[in-house]
Amino acid sequence: MNVPALSPEDITALAAMVDADRFSTGGSVLDLHARDQSHHHARKPDVVIWPTAASEVMAIVAYANDHRLPVTGWGSGSSLEGNPIPVRGGIILDFSRMNRILSIQEENFQADVEPGVIYQDLNARLRHTGLFFPPDPGARATIGGMIANNAGGTTTVRYGSTKDYVLKLTVVLANGELVDMGCRVKKSSSAYDLVRLFAGSEGTLGIVVKATIRLVGLPAEFSATIANFPSVETASRAVFELIRAGLDPAALELLDAECIQLINQEKDLGLNVSPTLFMEFQGPTLNQLSETMEMARDICEDAGCSEFRTGLGRAERNRLFEARHELGEMVVRNHPDGRIRVMDMAVPIATYPEMIADARRELTASGLSGYIFSHAGDGNIHINVVGEKDNSAQWTQVDQLTDKLVQKALDLDGTATGEHGVGIGKRQFMETEHGGSLAWMKRIKTLFDPNGILNPGKIFPSS
Amino acid sequence: MNVPALSPEDITALAAMVDADRFSTGGSVLDLHARDQSHHHARKPDVVIWPTAASEVMAIVAYANDHRLPVTGWGSGSSLEGNPIPVRGGIILDFSRMNRILSIQEENFQADVEPGVIYQDLNARLRHTGLFFPPDPGARATIGGMIANNAGGTTTVRYGSTKDYVLKLTVVLANGELVDMGCRVKKSSSAYDLVRLFAGSEGTLGIVVKATIRLVGLPAEFSATIANFPSVETASRAVFELIRAGLDPAALELLDAECIQLINQEKDLGLNVSPTLFMEFQGPTLNQLSETMEMARDICEDAGCSEFRTGLGRAERNRLFEARHELGEMVVRNHPDGRIRVMDMAVPIATYPEMIADARRELTASGLSGYIFSHAGDGNIHINVVGEKDNSAQWTQVDQLTDKLVQKALDLDGTATGEHGVGIGKRQFMETEHGGSLAWMKRIKTLFDPNGILNPGKIFPSS
Repeated sequence: MNVPALSPEDITALAAMVDADRFSTGGSVLDLHARDQSHHHARKPDVVIWPTAASEVMAIVAYANDHRLPVTGWGSGSSLEGNPIPVRGGIILDFSRMNRILSIQEENFQADVEPGVIYQDLNARLRHTGLFFPPDPGARATIGGMIANNAGGTTTVRYGSTKDYVLKLTVVLANGELVDMGCRVKKSSSAYDLVRLFAGSEGTLGIVVKATIRLVGLPAEFSATIANFPSVETASRAVFELIRAGLDPAALELLDAECIQLINQEKDLGLNVSPTLFMEFQGPTLNQLSETMEMARDICEDAGCSEFRTGLGRAERNRLFEARHELGEMVVRNHPDGRIRVMDMAVPIATYPEMIADARRELTASGLSGYIFSHAGDGNIHINVVGEKDNSAQWTQVDQLTDKLVQKALDLDGTATGEHGVGIGKRQFMETEHGGSLAWMKRIKTLFDPNGILNPGKIFPSS
Repeated sequence: MNVPALSPEDITALAAMVDADRFSTGGSVLDLHARDQSHHHARKPDVVIWPTAASEVMAIVAYANDHRLPVTGWGSGSSLEGNPIPVRGGIILDFSRMNRILSIQEENFQADVEPGVIYQDLNARLRHTGLFFPPDPGARATIGGMIANNAGGTTTVRYGSTKDYVLKLTVVLANGELVDMGCRVKKSSSAYDLVRLFAGSEGTLGIVVKATIRLVGLPAEFSATIANFPSVETASRAVFELIRAGLDPAALELLDAECIQLINQEKDLGLNVSPTLFMEFQGPTLNQLSETMEMARDICEDAGCSEFRTGLGRAERNRLFEARHELGEMVVRNHPDGRIRVMDMAVPIATYPEMIADARRELTASGLSGYIFSHAGDGNIHINVVGEKDNSAQWTQVDQLTDKLVQKALDLDGTATGEHGVGIGKRQFMETEHGGSLAWMKRIKTLFDPNGILNPGKIFPSS
């Protein structure tokens, strides 16, 4: 049983700040905000508040700061590293009702949004403009959450991560101050880049209440391709060569045989059960695409590809990527008695074959069930390892395997997290990954949030 | 006459830290480090030191911090906003002898360099690898200087600014501490992005002693194009439409008739004297390029283009871009009794025609000589305005015009500087551009450099 962080007086004071239907201490509501989609332990907040205006966020955060109460932002709870779990209780600010698309400036390739906008909803609204917001984490993530975690996805290999699409932020700081940062031009050399300091800071430096995001033109033509390989090692070799050749894929995903088996089981797509690359290429004309595709075929065949299927139609392509996006959930469904730990390391591309081979070897040696599916074009590797829920010996083994593989990625000059953020589970690697600069990050944290009220217990090992 | 910032004891102590031939208090050496290529007033340092190792920089900066001495980094002195002018005197660290290319990791698309490496020299070394470092400011800039100013150039419209190519930095902080930041993977969501905080901070937060930069593949084919227009307004309309159509030019430069006249005068290129777009497109095959070119022609003709010349060969293309890069110097040569003020604002692309029209109108109304040449595809506008050296009334007028046009860019939600940095000349606009976030930038500055020894007098209005 956790000790509440809020007193009855705090509850009363906070309740007065918003409409009654946007404030809750109800058990089921607290439960729904006690965990994200990760394996991390649930922890209920004391209260959930749904702000609808920056002024409300300012008042709530200022109160929390005065009374030293934890405040954690909440998007859709789809994160994978415990990022919004309120590990010290306190206040959850749920942005699901602060979700207006404030403006779409088509002619400037940008949009102003509130943090609770679901990115797929924005893209649906944009469809007739020929523009889109590229980052694509898969789950129904909010743009606020994507900014907090600097989310990536299948398209990052071509388009970059969320951070690359944020032009301006309006942020509520720990003292309740509202601050604008950035400008509406991508090209600027004007003083310090606060936007990219706050993007990816997981709500530990401030709370985003408005964002101007950059949009790009939808490609006219696309082509999806599947290539089968005899081993993950040969497939990962092809990945390296595809990137080196500069073919600029819009997605380059590696799925091991275990993943393909799961997809076939759930989706009836009849895929060959072997390590597989899902690729997407985009271009202005079909002619240009077919040239690119022939180059990709040559590279895959040289790397030992056993089958190369191209020219998939839009429907088949959508089914494939839908299956890819649902893989995490499929793993969960396939192991009803298991819990899943998701790894998210990324390594320099030349070391990618080595990292993959090492992961497969360690996984086999451990005897654990594991699924390797990677945003391979970025060197970003997800491994979903399954442990039985109440088998603590096995969980120790899962922990050890995770430690070993993250350490391997760091030894290869990689990163502990390519796109899920540090949250709870990667804190222990921050010292190794960042060395002396971690202390300076902590000082920046203390500068902006001297009382440590914003999403405490995240990013820093000892926080 | 300036009061020296250093005592004789300081000079003796610092001289003992490096070889004698890498330490100078000689008048001509100090003169050479008293100004960059801008119009800003020269100010001599007290001493120039050429470090060759991080350990030397650490020792010098630690001493400077203990004794409250200004320290300013120096690349090649080609900046345009007084960024490295030692306005409080003190120590200049000239990195021209710390200029080794430490490693080229072709297979990881990256290189480790010391800050004094000239970017063209790196690109020359890379030529056989098929890779290159895209940012292209024109002058023989050092990579350290480019990182400090987040330099852009003609290729930024396609490739982004210097900041987008920095993976890791090794930095000496004001206290003499050596800190590594970043990792060798582009895709990372691991804690705070210190790399992008330090890149673009103009040496006010720390001094870069090593950088890992990202490289990309050289395009197989390119095509340069010239389009002439009856007015800068019609040309800028074409710019907007070219960007909107997503043709992804590798350069999209607008030069007004005055610039073309200068180029013809100096280079004998026989260009039509009218507002002109220089464009470059790149692609994997000539077929793809000719498709793109036809689309560009249609757009330019719809916008009122009077002549569209395409298919320029490599030699002619190189001559054109050489002329473009030398324009700043041509303006200087053409006005031997004048001084030049360079503007560098950037605006959202939809407002670009308005900004250009306004600039031309104000320039005409002022009666001053001025040249508009823009990285138009980014909404980045350079205007070189000429004033007579000793005509203070005219300089007041130049100042007023600059203020007005920068203010116009800020009114359009733009930025005071697209690529030259804040340096000395843009400090006065920081309050307007950044509002409340400027105070937080200043707090970050104070956190990293509590004694204000690093490049004092830059970025902040009151520093």
